[in-house]
Amino acid sequence: MNPIVIKISGSEGADLDALCDDIAVLVGQGQPIILVHGASAAATALAERAGVPVRMITSPSGHSSRYTDPATLEMYVAAAAGQVNKDLVGRLQRRGVNAIGLSGLDGRLLQAQRKRAIRAVEKGKQRIIRDDYTGKLTGANAGLLNLLISAGYTPVIAPLAIGSDSEPLNVDGDRAAALLAASVHANNLIILANVPGLLSDFPDETSLVQRLTLSEIDKAMAMAEGRMKRKILAAQEALEGGVTQVVFADARHAEPVGDGLAGQGTVLERS
Amino acid sequence: MNPIVIKISGSEGADLDALCDDIAVLVGQGQPIILVHGASAAATALAERAGVPVRMITSPSGHSSRYTDPATLEMYVAAAAGQVNKDLVGRLQRRGVNAIGLSGLDGRLLQAQRKRAIRAVEKGKQRIIRDDYTGKLTGANAGLLNLLISAGYTPVIAPLAIGSDSEPLNVDGDRAAALLAASVHANNLIILANVPGLLSDFPDETSLVQRLTLSEIDKAMAMAEGRMKRKILAAQEALEGGVTQVVFADARHAEPVGDGLAGQGTVLERS
Repeated sequence: MNPIVIKISGSEGADLDALCDDIAVLVGQGQPIILVHGASAAATALAERAGVPVRMITSPSGHSSRYTDPATLEMYVAAAAGQVNKDLVGRLQRRGVNAIGLSGLDGRLLQAQRKRAIRAVEKGKQRIIRDDYTGKLTGANAGLLNLLISAGYTPVIAPLAIGSDSEPLNVDGDRAAALLAASVHANNLIILANVPGLLSDFPDETSLVQRLTLSEIDKAMAMAEGRMKRKILAAQEALEGGVTQVVFADARHAEPVGDGLAGQGTVLERS
Repeated sequence: MNPIVIKISGSEGADLDALCDDIAVLVGQGQPIILVHGASAAATALAERAGVPVRMITSPSGHSSRYTDPATLEMYVAAAAGQVNKDLVGRLQRRGVNAIGLSGLDGRLLQAQRKRAIRAVEKGKQRIIRDDYTGKLTGANAGLLNLLISAGYTPVIAPLAIGSDSEPLNVDGDRAAALLAASVHANNLIILANVPGLLSDFPDETSLVQRLTLSEIDKAMAMAEGRMKRKILAAQEALEGGVTQVVFADARHAEPVGDGLAGQGTVLERS
């Protein structure tokens, strides 16, 4: 059976117990699952506690991302590969799911190229940042996931990749999930966040867009606000990589995965 | 070929590049390696930065260990499974070793029982501590290690175990390495720390004990100071579990593993 890839947001508000309950049901039915998680809230909280200032970078095209200088990277690794990853592994293990937590460094699971000079817009002015440890994903080790899944394990993956100097890199969790979904030939990618899906009139939750195809991606991108732009890019990459269906679903209530698989949220398909 | 298990101390001072150089040579020769690491210095540093007080517990028998209350556990997980584990994975990957970092939670690699009430001696008085998340090791998942090794990966293991409620537990890295060495039928366990080996007249480094057998363990325990008591206990457990040879070797200089395998340090054997 092809695995289902689930991405859970790293923001506060997601119901992680509901998520893990759903995963336990599916795994119990023999459905392989790969869980990819974010780490934003935990990384911010740990950095603040440790006295590392949290800064954001806004790209000229309007994408916002964490400014990951070496001090921030250290906190990000601790939060993502340590705190969040092992918390999810523990929650799944408690439900009888034999979860294994990995980061993209482990077994070169997620490979990326560091962006050595990135353009940022600050107070209307562009500047070049050279000490950012963010990566552009270039490849995945599907063999490792297949090895673990075949042996009955459920991979839980932290959004870190390995760079060309084997350095850890902060990568976008949604796009990591898309790459992994394509690499293991998943039919389904469920992207869970603290919204019902793509909203045509953000933040009005009644303006949910129920269905989209690849030909409508530009239109969707125009509607999207903030983080949702990345999710649409991720969905596009997954669909173009061969994933049959991507669903943006709500992480805040019971049965988030079941609802997503039932098409509650925004369903994206090739055509 | 049976794996060699290497334990590297989590104290400051170990030469991690020398360690990883040695591992790369051995892995390049087809020798499977399992690396178990400590995390004490990193956990202390992160806890101090985050404002979590570091406290030690001294048992009535004189063993000293980290008081791991819930706030300390959170820092310990972040440091051990996040910072230290991924740092070692990156160093090995940079040398062409396909390392995979795991904690004992992942795939239930290390199982332990939480000590729900532990006796501590403070200023000469005994008291009972009930919120400590330290575990007594009860089992290991050798199948997971064999799966990864057969596929060409090098496991790198953080000293955390999974408790009976699937909670993370702080476990002793030396004893974790001993349990894992016995479980995978390793012939050799090399325990690297910032001393040449067991010293009969601590801290005089010229008083190195070169060879010991199981029948001399009580004598060795009487000589040992502090952390070394745990290492002797670990060596005893490994030998009783079927490991042929345990070596306490020096982590502070070039070729620490090669020297250990060549018998430089304290060599412990069954008879």
